Amino acid sequence: MTRLSTPARADAEALDRDDTLRGLRERFDLPAGVRYFDGNSLGALPASVAPAVATAVSDQWGTGLVRSWNDPWIDLPARAAGKIARLIGADGNDVAVTDSVSVNLFKLLSAALRLRPGRDVIVVDGGEFPTDLYVAQGLCEGPNALARLRRLDDGADWAASLAKMDDVAVFCVSHASYRTGALADMQALTAAAHAAGALVLWDLSHTAGAIEVDLAGCDVDFAVGCGYKYLNGGPGAPAFLYVAPRWQAEAWNPIQGWLGHADFFAFEGTYRPAPDVSRFHCGTWPILSMTALDAALDAFDRVEMAALRSKALALGDLFLQCIEPLRVAHDLEVITPVDHRRRGGMIALRHVEGYAVMQALIDRGIVGDFRPPDIMRFGLAPLYQRYVDAWDAAATLAEVLTTRAWDTPAYQSRQRVT
Amino acid sequence: MTRLSTPARADAEALDRDDTLRGLRERFDLPAGVRYFDGNSLGALPASVAPAVATAVSDQWGTGLVRSWNDPWIDLPARAAGKIARLIGADGNDVAVTDSVSVNLFKLLSAALRLRPGRDVIVVDGGEFPTDLYVAQGLCEGPNALARLRRLDDGADWAASLAKMDDVAVFCVSHASYRTGALADMQALTAAAHAAGALVLWDLSHTAGAIEVDLAGCDVDFAVGCGYKYLNGGPGAPAFLYVAPRWQAEAWNPIQGWLGHADFFAFEGTYRPAPDVSRFHCGTWPILSMTALDAALDAFDRVEMAALRSKALALGDLFLQCIEPLRVAHDLEVITPVDHRRRGGMIALRHVEGYAVMQALIDRGIVGDFRPPDIMRFGLAPLYQRYVDAWDAAATLAEVLTTRAWDTPAYQSRQRVT
Repeated sequence: MTRLSTPARADAEALDRDDTLRGLRERFDLPAGVRYFDGNSLGALPASVAPAVATAVSDQWGTGLVRSWNDPWIDLPARAAGKIARLIGADGNDVAVTDSVSVNLFKLLSAALRLRPGRDVIVVDGGEFPTDLYVAQGLCEGPNALARLRRLDDGADWAASLAKMDDVAVFCVSHASYRTGALADMQALTAAAHAAGALVLWDLSHTAGAIEVDLAGCDVDFAVGCGYKYLNGGPGAPAFLYVAPRWQAEAWNPIQGWLGHADFFAFEGTYRPAPDVSRFHCGTWPILSMTALDAALDAFDRVEMAALRSKALALGDLFLQCIEPLRVAHDLEVITPVDHRRRGGMIALRHVEGYAVMQALIDRGIVGDFRPPDIMRFGLAPLYQRYVDAWDAAATLAEVLTTRAWDTPAYQSRQRVT
Repeated sequence: MTRLSTPARADAEALDRDDTLRGLRERFDLPAGVRYFDGNSLGALPASVAPAVATAVSDQWGTGLVRSWNDPWIDLPARAAGKIARLIGADGNDVAVTDSVSVNLFKLLSAALRLRPGRDVIVVDGGEFPTDLYVAQGLCEGPNALARLRRLDDGADWAASLAKMDDVAVFCVSHASYRTGALADMQALTAAAHAAGALVLWDLSHTAGAIEVDLAGCDVDFAVGCGYKYLNGGPGAPAFLYVAPRWQAEAWNPIQGWLGHADFFAFEGTYRPAPDVSRFHCGTWPILSMTALDAALDAFDRVEMAALRSKALALGDLFLQCIEPLRVAHDLEVITPVDHRRRGGMIALRHVEGYAVMQALIDRGIVGDFRPPDIMRFGLAPLYQRYVDAWDAAATLAEVLTTRAWDTPAYQSRQRVT
């Protein structure tokens, strides 16, 4: 990146005035005094959620009682799936909103293994989020192990690695790294996995709602993703999964719960999987959390992902320009790729005192988060962030580093949950 | 049952006046004009829920944002577990509130199979709820089947059947049948399973919050249960599971999600299961639904299960007395055991036009439900039901049957979701 002179706050204000998306911020209830950069962990609260949830509790549950299963609850997951599908390049009929990312990974990895008999290796990318890794490990351990686990090195040429393998059943890979924010090349890696005879499972937890995703266009087999990060669905919102149409009639859900049955209200004695992606439902959905997610997704209504992505890149560029003088002076390392084609939805910075620095920032109203051992993450959320927010975050970071505000016992000893 | 003269409504009113639990009804928000007899499917709305959920949405999520994970969300499942534990004869440290009944069954059946190497049969009771059966079937099918499924006949002597088997790894059994409302003998069947060398997994979906349960006293190995029936946790509320202390260090969760890790915020590269029941957590919990469940459980505060059970039996007895004259006249069959020791938390009636009869009842404000092929279910919920409600339900049923009010096209053709 060319070294630019540090922008002034007035420059950020000018960018906000010219921002055609600035009105979207009105779709959120944001607390006063906070610049929120943790939408990559828990998205902010859309204004549509509180009334929708209140209605679900008092009217649908309280007054409608069990009758609300007929309307609106039974169709709620499909409605949310349709809204998510548009953001990830999929048809709503190929997406199911259900369970957690962990449980959905388990289901789809199991399905993929069965679709590739004679191959018994699960390959995971080197920077994979723990739950992806742990779930894969669980399938590869013990007396009934279904597969062997192979982990690629972070930073290696994954496509070249896959090309040398002939025993891979499924390649499980995050679209963007939860640690570095680096974006993987979905088109190229999917093709590489297919060329090696493997299926591919993309984890969109850090890109759905943040980056343009084209699952169908990239010929992806399976995907999972998170409802509570960039989709703003609320704490622990239901997750989603995607199954390519070509696998839906064949892919087997190992957790045969009643809502995956072809006719679940018939209470038949034998499991018959639904003919489509619905077979990946299991037990009863958490309707209140599902209601929040469904309402939250309306924040994306009539918003094009390309426009959101452009703004997110510009927010990141501004932040990077502003912190440029801090890098050498304070041993701050930018580990997110600056290259737009390789950059995910956040900016990750390494600093030896990253934990304490982030605590100092949070106390000053700049809420990002920390991941061990030394990574500060600043999530970009163009639906509700302003350019002045990015400027203020950088300015506050400069203040904290310059004054060593992080160097107090209070910031060193906090509980490490952010 | 001795034939009694049919009680008058004034008799029911007198019972309500003498009911020491009648004040508990104030803990619920009940709609006007409805007598609710479907708490066995979806419990009514406790008054504590709406404010708790509104606070979770607007204050904890909206204002607190990601910081609310530190407090109160991270401890929320354990808090709910403690409240449930008291109702089922367990210690809070042996209960986890997480996922759905289906997913929890999958985890615990898998764990049980691994704890009994050399044995490969899952036995399920004959009247089992579909999801229990389907999940067990899923473990017993396909090229990687872990077990064989054996189904006991409904109505058979299960203890005698188990005594003849030497290959059973785990016996999966519902404490009360979702169809007939018959209660199984937890003490005797657990002992029978153990005598046969098997472990036992009780499904408490139809008894937790309705019946006195003593998991520890009965030496039970594993249990699962539902949060949204008699526990009133709201539609699709998180489920719970129980693991006896003796199995916690050894029992293996096949779905190794990040929240089951011994130190989940360390983001380690290798899965280390938590040393206790927490290892059966998987992905992030649906916090809004979990908040509703936790608040709802306060409706049981300072309530003894023995007193609730007594009232439930009395409500059922009154209802049965009132409908006694209908049995022969209208071919109405009571399939729930009249014997208190064998009766679960509801009264189930068979009628050839059960579906239409139930629709007519619902239109008249008596909300029960229907299960194929011909079963009407009337759930008893002594926390909020009055004796006059039971009397009114019986009187309305008499009216519907006597006038053949069920015999209209509208009641025959409705969508079969109740």
